[in-house]
Amino acid sequence: MTEVKTTSSPEVLVSEWGPEDEHGSTNRMTPESRAKIMSQIDGRAFYDLSVDYFVGMPSFQAAGDPAYQIFMSHTPRGTVVDDLNGMGDHVNRSCGYSGDVIMMYTHTGTHIDALNHFGKGNKTYNGFDADEHLGSRNWTKAGSEQILPLIARGVLIDVAGFKQVECLPPSYGITPQDLRDTLEWQQTSIQEGDIVLIRTGRMQYWPDGSQVFGDSPGLTVEAARWVTEHKVVAVGADNEAVEHTPSTDPENWLPGHSHFLIDNGVPQMECLDLEALAADSVYEFGFIGAPIRLRGATGSPIRPLAFPLKKG
Amino acid sequence: MTEVKTTSSPEVLVSEWGPEDEHGSTNRMTPESRAKIMSQIDGRAFYDLSVDYFVGMPSFQAAGDPAYQIFMSHTPRGTVVDDLNGMGDHVNRSCGYSGDVIMMYTHTGTHIDALNHFGKGNKTYNGFDADEHLGSRNWTKAGSEQILPLIARGVLIDVAGFKQVECLPPSYGITPQDLRDTLEWQQTSIQEGDIVLIRTGRMQYWPDGSQVFGDSPGLTVEAARWVTEHKVVAVGADNEAVEHTPSTDPENWLPGHSHFLIDNGVPQMECLDLEALAADSVYEFGFIGAPIRLRGATGSPIRPLAFPLKKG
Amino acid sequence: MTEVKTTSSPEVLVSEWGPEDEHGSTNRMTPESRAKIMSQIDGRAFYDLSVDYFVGMPSFQAAGDPAYQIFMSHTPRGTVVDDLNGMGDHVNRSCGYSGDVIMMYTHTGTHIDALNHFGKGNKTYNGFDADEHLGSRNWTKAGSEQILPLIARGVLIDVAGFKQVECLPPSYGITPQDLRDTLEWQQTSIQEGDIVLIRTGRMQYWPDGSQVFGDSPGLTVEAARWVTEHKVVAVGADNEAVEHTPSTDPENWLPGHSHFLIDNGVPQMECLDLEALAADSVYEFGFIGAPIRLRGATGSPIRPLAFPLKKG
Amino acid sequence: MTEVKTTSSPEVLVSEWGPEDEHGSTNRMTPESRAKIMSQIDGRAFYDLSVDYFVGMPSFQAAGDPAYQIFMSHTPRGTVVDDLNGMGDHVNRSCGYSGDVIMMYTHTGTHIDALNHFGKGNKTYNGFDADEHLGSRNWTKAGSEQILPLIARGVLIDVAGFKQVECLPPSYGITPQDLRDTLEWQQTSIQEGDIVLIRTGRMQYWPDGSQVFGDSPGLTVEAARWVTEHKVVAVGADNEAVEHTPSTDPENWLPGHSHFLIDNGVPQMECLDLEALAADSVYEFGFIGAPIRLRGATGSPIRPLAFPLKKG
Repeated sequence: MTEVKTTSSPEVLVSEWGPEDEHGSTNRMTPESRAKIMSQIDGRAFYDLSVDYFVGMPSFQAAGDPAYQIFMSHTPRGTVVDDLNGMGDHVNRSCGYSGDVIMMYTHTGTHIDALNHFGKGNKTYNGFDADEHLGSRNWTKAGSEQILPLIARGVLIDVAGFKQVECLPPSYGITPQDLRDTLEWQQTSIQEGDIVLIRTGRMQYWPDGSQVFGDSPGLTVEAARWVTEHKVVAVGADNEAVEHTPSTDPENWLPGHSHFLIDNGVPQMECLDLEALAADSVYEFGFIGAPIRLRGATGSPIRPLAFPLKKG
Repeated sequence: MTEVKTTSSPEVLVSEWGPEDEHGSTNRMTPESRAKIMSQIDGRAFYDLSVDYFVGMPSFQAAGDPAYQIFMSHTPRGTVVDDLNGMGDHVNRSCGYSGDVIMMYTHTGTHIDALNHFGKGNKTYNGFDADEHLGSRNWTKAGSEQILPLIARGVLIDVAGFKQVECLPPSYGITPQDLRDTLEWQQTSIQEGDIVLIRTGRMQYWPDGSQVFGDSPGLTVEAARWVTEHKVVAVGADNEAVEHTPSTDPENWLPGHSHFLIDNGVPQMECLDLEALAADSVYEFGFIGAPIRLRGATGSPIRPLAFPLKKG
Repeated sequence: MTEVKTTSSPEVLVSEWGPEDEHGSTNRMTPESRAKIMSQIDGRAFYDLSVDYFVGMPSFQAAGDPAYQIFMSHTPRGTVVDDLNGMGDHVNRSCGYSGDVIMMYTHTGTHIDALNHFGKGNKTYNGFDADEHLGSRNWTKAGSEQILPLIARGVLIDVAGFKQVECLPPSYGITPQDLRDTLEWQQTSIQEGDIVLIRTGRMQYWPDGSQVFGDSPGLTVEAARWVTEHKVVAVGADNEAVEHTPSTDPENWLPGHSHFLIDNGVPQMECLDLEALAADSVYEFGFIGAPIRLRGATGSPIRPLAFPLKKG
Repeated sequence: MTEVKTTSSPEVLVSEWGPEDEHGSTNRMTPESRAKIMSQIDGRAFYDLSVDYFVGMPSFQAAGDPAYQIFMSHTPRGTVVDDLNGMGDHVNRSCGYSGDVIMMYTHTGTHIDALNHFGKGNKTYNGFDADEHLGSRNWTKAGSEQILPLIARGVLIDVAGFKQVECLPPSYGITPQDLRDTLEWQQTSIQEGDIVLIRTGRMQYWPDGSQVFGDSPGLTVEAARWVTEHKVVAVGADNEAVEHTPSTDPENWLPGHSHFLIDNGVPQMECLDLEALAADSVYEFGFIGAPIRLRGATGSPIRPLAFPLKKG
């Protein structure tokens, strides 16, 4: 790979799903694929792959993005004082009204990157151009609401487990061989239409941001290519960027994002909690998750559930 | 019922799941109940019961709560100018970085009310007291993250369909008899452990807030009692409050909320899109949905999926 | 004026203060001009020309901008529960900590429009181009922090007072003749370096947004020209846009903004409370006000004070 | 002082301005005091004592408060795409509309603490009780809008200058003797009705938060008492808390706040930029500043101007 300097083509190509497509690789799910995986699920148990949102949780703030916030907009005692609901003192003393407001960068906590999160120049997935499709508030194309509900076979690739380390070293670049070796060790294989989840070990440190974030182990661009060659529906990891950071490509600070989102239309999930799946050696499962439909957003919270499959 | 003026006891009783419980009726789901419904799902089709979030969408603003907002925190051209990511002009011109920030009242769009959303005086579900459990930013008990992932049989009660109206009249109070009649018409029955969804017709007007919100048809307190007598896991509706509004109880402006959330520990979903289910006469389905885990929040976005069951 | 259809040149010209200038007409203040007005002030009385910010106050929301919000981030009781300051129960029970967070569109309440608030195509004041100077979060040129502190002679032109009406009619366009007639009636004249404030009567209805906002009386473009011909330091009014609305120019929805901000570099203040000045017939005064220095912002809250001058 | 452990009485006393007062020490300004200082001002020069607000500026985030944020709500190109103002493509291409939204903790940048920022238990200044006066969103008493516009003689006490250090050492507690010695060195005296500004040297490091914030030099409680004995109108400093931090009082983490705000009704300004005043040895001046009127807020941005006095 040594002669390759730029890891991605300079232009955005038309997607394989046509020039108007906004769903990307989530188009790969079919009635048949869904019926197949749903029929294999053993519903008795499930794993929640998400984490809580709370004030003080780790998040990306170095580039100016706000930390997660929640504020009360109505409290029982406050409502007696301000009567914002107009119900009066008597009613407000007997009813205790509570309401709250949240604010977050859309790439906070367990979330999914929409296809418009990264681009090439002013173009994003499928060549959608900012001049035509970036409003004052949000993109009007390829936002998180265009990611189809993820109902597919999920496969965990527990690289940290295979390597028998608590966590992969800082900035470690997972290679295609690492992925192949881990799958062999797990006795698992990837199939077209899968959702592939990579475990580095990072999320076991959650919510200690000093250990979860920065110099992240993750996929090399070569490993990212290996994943997309399997025609997956989506990818995810228990780290901040799926790929390893910082980038080793001097031309691109997030070449894995370019590869997944732009070159292949594959949405990517980050900060997934894969600890329990790994502890229980659950490498294949029914994956059910759908991002909150934030129109045009570059990312969205998602709370995926992983269901073990029936034996045999 | 005529002599009843106050529809709810003045005190918060200990929940049937013990004094420390925060899950309420979602405790009713068991490995067996989950396995049963999951085994009945025909995965070929599903219905998305949620709506998009966008600037200008209808929401509750009369009591001062903010309208939904999304803002760009990174744009491709802006990043060239401000270099907030520190990658420099050359890289930022070739990579197009987009990020965004959302803000919302937690009861916006398709959402679920947590058990701490309503109370009696300074106490909320299970007697959790504001003096011990209401922080500056959020409740520390019975928040949205305590609602267990909803995996259960869902039943639609299409009252508007039964009554052959486009939408129930403003403020119409659905009675227990309405529910029974509709179920008979549908040839459906409710079972313990179900998630019950009520259709008034209101969400067909979405996103025209002038038609969706205000003077809402919905459950009377008597109908709410009828629902909870069936030991449901959760309730939901295609309106703003599940119950009809305004309240006819001079002592309580949301007596249905008191009944479901406080007296019975039943979380309630609002602004569900039930139009396609009704159009297709899908009255029984596998319901899979889990709110975003906003710690302590009184509500949370949720994107439930309804899966038709296998025939026979 | 009848043949003029487009009221402003299509291109942004270099400002009279040079191609790098960001201060516009506030450059007109000099040590001498400041010394002169300060020496004339009788400090015994002053008028506060601003209004309060509060939840529910009128603001521009039709184009999606958020209403003013304030939230508690620390409350005395909440801090006992959450200990966000880490001081522990004992200390937090005896100390009562309160803190709060605000959010607002920068054009809310009594505020000043910065020169970058309006433009022509992608260029704003002095030809500053979005491609070079609009970051992801804010303009990097001609923001509110570039408006020099306003210390100058102020002149009120009480058009509503002259016309002996409570308030000018909706959408009324104030003409140059109206301004001249009012000044004659007041026995006041405008001088180079003044800050000119126009009274329509609208702010007497504050905070009733239904009466304050919409179809606003204000300056015609001809009257705006008359004002800038006097080489003022700034302009302001007791209405939402200084100019009358809606625009009568089919090519420009805010031609007065184009005239003041872009063509002449004159910042404009809106939602000024001029009621007390008018009631007391204070037509000349020392104007002291400085916007909060929000770097790059298109507007900023300002709290101007008007000091009557010494007699004789 | 050695036997004193608690530096403040446990109860909030009625203020010297009566039980309903919300203005505190700003009541000390009179028509005569204002006329006197305004007559002494030499308006040719002035000093701006405030700093800019920008994304990434230092602020208090350790206790969960949000960092300063600004977001574009309208951009020239975005408005062409989204037409949020409804003016259509043609008009929006020729007019370049820009608007923005800010969010901040009210104690960010150069700001003033309102009297309700600190308290004793659930009571704040003048005994105003949270049960009666703390709404869901804000206090209804003694907020920033109750601080009367500050028009008074200002006195700089340049302790760092007197001690001939670039900056006072971390956590250094300024004593009454330090204040007296500095004033003697400056040949300045404090009078009743003054606004007293303390210079530690910290703000010369702005905006390097690692040097500006934390372990702050500032007033001891004894020095705070010495200041209030002079019946000042307000106090301020070029540091984060006016007082030195961390507190040496085990019962009170901000005893200086208790002393100024609660026991004496004196609002305090923080993060003032006093560098230029000190460099020019301007120790007496006309101080003119008024906080933005955020109703009920515990703090507010303020942009004070200091005007040198006429010679002789």
